Order: sequence, then structure tokens, then C-alpha cells
Amino acid sequence: MKSVTEYLWFNTKQHREFINITDRVEDFVSRSDITDGFVLVSAMHITAGVYVNDAETGLIADIEEWLEQLAPYRPDYRHHATGESNGDAHLKSLLVHHEVIVPITDGKLDLGQWQQVYYAEFDGQRRKRVILKALGK
Amino acid sequence: MKSVTEYLWFNTKQHREFINITDRVEDFVSRSDITDGFVLVSAMHITAGVYVNDAETGLIADIEEWLEQLAPYRPDYRHHATGESNGDAHLKSLLVHHEVIVPITDGKLDLGQWQQVYYAEFDGQRRKRVILKALGK
Amino acid sequence: MKSVTEYLWFNTKQHREFINITDRVEDFVSRSDITDGFVLVSAMHITAGVYVNDAETGLIADIEEWLEQLAPYRPDYRHHATGESNGDAHLKSLLVHHEVIVPITDGKLDLGQWQQVYYAEFDGQRRKRVILKALGK
Repeated sequence: MKSVTEYLWFNTKQHREFINITDRVEDFVSRSDITDGFVLVSAMHITAGVYVNDAETGLIADIEEWLEQLAPYRPDYRHHATGESNGDAHLKSLLVHHEVIVPITDGKLDLGQWQQVYYAEFDGQRRKRVILKALGK
Repeated sequence: MKSVTEYLWFNTKQHREFINITDRVEDFVSRSDITDGFVLVSAMHITAGVYVNDAETGLIADIEEWLEQLAPYRPDYRHHATGESNGDAHLKSLLVHHEVIVPITDGKLDLGQWQQVYYAEFDGQRRKRVILKALGK
Repeated sequence: MKSVTEYLWFNTKQHREFINITDRVEDFVSRSDITDGFVLVSAMHITAGVYVNDAETGLIADIEEWLEQLAPYRPDYRHHATGESNGDAHLKSLLVHHEVIVPITDGKLDLGQWQQVYYAEFDGQRRKRVILKALGK
């Protein structure tokens, strides 16, 4: 059994950004020499998410608007008594989830035709990390 | 370490369907000869989900109604500028998530008494796939 | 490849509780003798969740309020025709998800600075279980 780990760093220009990281995960798996197994792609922060869906600009704008409806920015979250103002970012992270497992088959990400891996930043403009860990043979 | 992979195919009669696939996952694990590990059950599409919950008809109707409230069909998603009309199916998929990991112990799915694995189709009437990949010993 | 499994038992005093189980998962991993791999933390019930987020009291109250807004207690869920009254707990469980995978690196949980593992009980005051299964080397 092999296990390989790397970290991706992000420092987004915008407060919120959706970044397609499929190529970076694919490149990591290719260098890992693992031909069959799982790769975990997991945000190491509590105000960011990782999800799999479509790389279509209109849809991404729909997702952002939808997340704002279901987990809106509000000044009055209790969490803000700590001095933070990012309560909504925690809820958005819970909603899309902070991680995915992508299967590896024949040395490649075994994704469907339209599946892309996204890093969703909900409280950016600072250095943040995603862990990539592949396990397999 | 062993790794075994199979694909389940679906072509639902209805636009939306909730299909209990627990027996198919259990059968796959039984044939995999893996007695301890994980099995990933992951939709390979961006308009379908995989989740674990109860096989109770009333609850499934509740889940469907609830998803429609939180991620409603609407004609005016930006995604529809591509010619698609399934923006809501993408959001529903994000909400329930597209995959689960089920633990394998003593050669069986190590699920709680009421836990069942569901494939949730949100944009059906076409051929779609789920990947099953078991990793373990 | 090594694989180790344990079960955590809960019997909450309140109907709903959020319990930080990070130390218990860390202790399990430490005893597992696995230095690199994955640990699955998965509720074995359909009315409880497991998620990773912040151990901040105000935020936890925000999360509870938010879940009640998005998946409210209602007397009239169809599921209640079975005699149950916990339809909302099923939906809350779907929303936060019932499981996480935590990466293990150098024998420790490879979590970000503020990431903590929570067991979220939505229908407590009875004995319930979480499975911990670590896979790695």
C-alpha cells in the first residue's frame, strides 16, 4: 500500500472564489505513482469547501447566489461576538461540505465526463490550505 | 491491500427517483473478497446524489419535497443559458452530496440498523453511472 | 496495510447536542498504530450527523438555529405516519452529512488549526453509535 500527501495553498484575491482544482489533483495523482485507490481532497479551514460539480460559469454564479440565500451574510450571528464577521462562511462550508474522495483507476481520477473538483473559498484574501492524500496501490 | 471496482448503471423511468442500492453495494462487497476496509459509492454525474438514510416511503417523499423547497426548479437559473433546464438538479446534488464511504467489517457493510444507501436521481430518463470502489484487506 | 475499528457510544441528556469528539478520534488513531492513512468517522444512525468545523460556542448555537430554519421541526412530515416524530432530525442529518474522512499523517489527525470533529445528535436520549475505522500503514 502506498500513501502520498501534498498541500495546495490558496490566497484568493476576492472574498469569495470558486477555483477549479481538477488539474492540480490529477497532476498530484499522476506523480503519486498510485494506480488504484482513493484521493482525499479536503479543505483545512472551516470557512471553505471542496465539492464536485460542473465547470460552467452560469452554474457557478447560480451556486453562489443559492448559498447566499440558504446561508446569508448577516451581521448578527452569535459567532460575531468573537470579533469575526464570517458566520455565513462557516454555514456555507457545512452546506457544500469541506471534502471529497475521488476514486483513482488506471492512474487517473475516475470522474464522470462533467465532474470537476472545486475549491470554494468563502472567506478569502488570506493564505489557506487544502490537503491531498492518495491511498492505494 | 486489495482494490476492486465496478460500475452500476441507471436509466430511470421518472425524472426524479430514489433507488435503494444497499443490496447491490452489499453484493459487490461480498464478491470483492475484501473483509475489512472502505467502499466508496459515488455518482459519476453532477445531477444525482448518493446518501445514507432510512428506507421509509413517507420519509423519502418528505426528502423530495424538502429538496424542492431548498433547491427549487426555476426557469431562470443562469445555467439555463447553456440550453439546459436542470439547474435545480445540480443544487439538489450538492445538498445531499454525490457520494458516501461505507465501512466494511467482517466482509459486510458495517451500517447501522436503519441505514440504507440511496441513489438519488434528479435528472433522469438517461443512462447514468455510479462507481463502486472497495479498498481494504 | 492495517485496518482498525472501534465504536463510540453516546446517550445524550438533551434531545439535541453537539459533542466535540476530536480528542476521542485522536486517541483512537494514536492507539491504532497507523501513521499514515484515513480515519472514517461515521454516525450509524439516520438522525445524527458528523461534521468538521469550529469549537466556538456562539457558532454552534448559530448552526443549531440555522439547521432549524432549513430543516424545521414540523408535526406534519409524512414520516410521522409511522409513529415517529423525528422527520426534522433525518433532514438535519442529510444537511450536515453523517460522516467525515480525516487524514492521518505522522500518526496524528492532519486537521487545520481550527478544525474539530463534531458528533451532532438530532434525536437523542437513547443509545447511539459512531464507527471509527482507520485504514493505512
